[in-house]
Amino acid sequence: MKKVGVVLSGCGVYDGSEIHEATLTLYFLDRLGAKILCMAPDVAQMHVIDHVKGEPVEERRNVLVEAARIARGEIRDLKDVKAADLDALIFPGGFGAAKNLSDFAVKGVGCMVHPDVERLIRAMHASKKPLGFICIAPVLAAKVLGSFSPRLTVGCNKETAAALEKLGARHIVCRVDEVEVDAEQKIVTTPAYMLGPSIAHVAQGIEKLVHAVVKLAG
Amino acid sequence: MKKVGVVLSGCGVYDGSEIHEATLTLYFLDRLGAKILCMAPDVAQMHVIDHVKGEPVEERRNVLVEAARIARGEIRDLKDVKAADLDALIFPGGFGAAKNLSDFAVKGVGCMVHPDVERLIRAMHASKKPLGFICIAPVLAAKVLGSFSPRLTVGCNKETAAALEKLGARHIVCRVDEVEVDAEQKIVTTPAYMLGPSIAHVAQGIEKLVHAVVKLAG
Repeated sequence: MKKVGVVLSGCGVYDGSEIHEATLTLYFLDRLGAKILCMAPDVAQMHVIDHVKGEPVEERRNVLVEAARIARGEIRDLKDVKAADLDALIFPGGFGAAKNLSDFAVKGVGCMVHPDVERLIRAMHASKKPLGFICIAPVLAAKVLGSFSPRLTVGCNKETAAALEKLGARHIVCRVDEVEVDAEQKIVTTPAYMLGPSIAHVAQGIEKLVHAVVKLAG
Repeated sequence: MKKVGVVLSGCGVYDGSEIHEATLTLYFLDRLGAKILCMAPDVAQMHVIDHVKGEPVEERRNVLVEAARIARGEIRDLKDVKAADLDALIFPGGFGAAKNLSDFAVKGVGCMVHPDVERLIRAMHASKKPLGFICIAPVLAAKVLGSFSPRLTVGCNKETAAALEKLGARHIVCRVDEVEVDAEQKIVTTPAYMLGPSIAHVAQGIEKLVHAVVKLAG
């Protein structure tokens, strides 16, 4: 039974983890019989967005506490998780990946990645354990592992693709129902809601990503 | 293309919609090509639960605004939705069904159902349009439609089953990967996280519920 970590970044597409992408990741992992370990950093969200209006509101929320909604309370503080605890690690998308796990949404290629997120990505990669990145989350792979020139996709968004390439990655155009597998670097990516348009489309790519990541875990 | 409403009650198992149940409902509906209409009442949540600690916190949140996280912003105020807009209607579970759409969690069989929820359930039933209720949500069906003695399931939880029967329903024991279909009343129920234990199990019953509801819509 493979132990697969899922890194969450809050709960909601505009300020946290994209809920459909995160839930579908858990669903396809569970169907494969993987042991799932949800985790998130114990930090304040960059901000809180009213998902009806699409506008920020005067509220403060914590990434770990909100992510626990997706994990039904079964979640660990990311800082306590080591690569030795895992066979593979997957990052669902949502703006939380670019606002809470990094500040890519504000700083672009000059972004910082949360230190524990960077530590765990580097440790998994150094241990030759597979990593999966969904939607916008490949920016984390590009920032942390750009020097290894990984093959990554964010679909066909030119601006984000250009940012990935500036960070050292090679961007590959990819359909929503497909995945880009860099077998050498053991990194799998899929565009999900970077392309959409709807949950059934997004699910096809995520199912393939989960299968590819578990397969690369050997 | 069938138009199927999905009534959300917030965002998170302990104070709103159960996220996996709601997301899987959207997923299986979209795979069938249904047109999905998410909705929620524009009311304050009964309370806010920290999903790490499982305890209430001093915060106020709005059911519609939080439910919009699951719907990615594509959501309508329940009060503006009529039975004529829909071919079928599904209620995912989560404590929100028993705390925000009704006060069953506090009052038990003496509960009230939110007036617009009650109106829409009655109107769908009177129009012979199918209704689906997942997890704890069948308490809404029992309270509003108990006089029609519908066949409902909440799995095998004796206390909740007894409450359903007090409200006039007939409780049927059911496995998590199955559904109870009352073809005469056009009501479909599945236990989901009333039984669990995990998302892949829950998904089997929800997939069957979605198929049964869409089939009953003709």
